[in-house]
Amino acid sequence: MDQISRPRPVIRIDLPSPSGLQRLGRGKITLLEHIRETGSISAAGRAMDMSYRRAWLLVSAVNAMFGEEAVTSQRGGKQGGGAMVTPFGEALIARFRAMEEKALSAMAEDIAWLEAQRAGLKDPAPPS
Amino acid sequence: MDQISRPRPVIRIDLPSPSGLQRLGRGKITLLEHIRETGSISAAGRAMDMSYRRAWLLVSAVNAMFGEEAVTSQRGGKQGGGAMVTPFGEALIARFRAMEEKALSAMAEDIAWLEAQRAGLKDPAPPS
Repeated sequence: MDQISRPRPVIRIDLPSPSGLQRLGRGKITLLEHIRETGSISAAGRAMDMSYRRAWLLVSAVNAMFGEEAVTSQRGGKQGGGAMVTPFGEALIARFRAMEEKALSAMAEDIAWLEAQRAGLKDPAPPS
Repeated sequence: MDQISRPRPVIRIDLPSPSGLQRLGRGKITLLEHIRETGSISAAGRAMDMSYRRAWLLVSAVNAMFGEEAVTSQRGGKQGGGAMVTPFGEALIARFRAMEEKALSAMAEDIAWLEAQRAGLKDPAPPS
C-alpha cells in the first residue's frame, strides 16, 4: 500500500468554557510554530494560506485559552509590527507535539489494524 | 475547577484516498452505535439531531473506507427498511473506542498540565 494512503491519527483538545467550546489542535499549534519562525502573524498566516484576519483570530483564541498569552504582538512601526511566541507558547507547542507522539504510539497497533482493513479496497492510493 | 471545564481529548483518523481525505472520528462511530441500538439509519440520525440524508451519507462514507461494509441496510418494506451493524462494524466501533482510551491515558499527564495552565483564567466554568 502506498505511503500516501496510510491512516494518520489526529488529536485535538476540546476546552469547554463559559463562552463556548475552545479547540486546541494542530492548526493553531502549526500557526504558533510559523510565528516562531517568521516573527509575524501575517507571514505565518501566509505560510498556511490563511488571511491575516483568520491568523489573528486564531492567535487571539489561543491567547484566551489559558492564564498566559502564547503570542505577544505589536501593531505598527516601520516593520508593520511583529509577533513573538512567549515561553508559555513554546511550552504549549512542545506539550502538544509530545501529546501527538504519545497518542500515535499508544494507538500504533490499532492504526495498523485499520490499515490492514483497507487492503481489500481497490486502488487505495494513486500509483506513485 | 468545575467538571465542565476539564480538557477533553478528541481523536480522529485521517485516511488519505484517491477520492480525497476520509475521516473517521467519534461522530461516525457514535452514529454506528446508534444504528446498532435502533436498527435504523433514520432513528440513529434523529438521536444525533441529524437529517436522514446526512446520516445516510456518513454511513456511505464509512462503508467506502474499508474492504468491508460496517452497516448493511434495506430500503422499503412495511417497516421502512432497516439497518444493521455488521461484525466488521462492531470491530470498528470497538477499535475506535479502545483507541480513544489508549490515547487518553497516554496523554493524561499533559492534559493535567493543560488544565493547570487554565487555573489562572477568571471564571473558567459557569457555577454549577
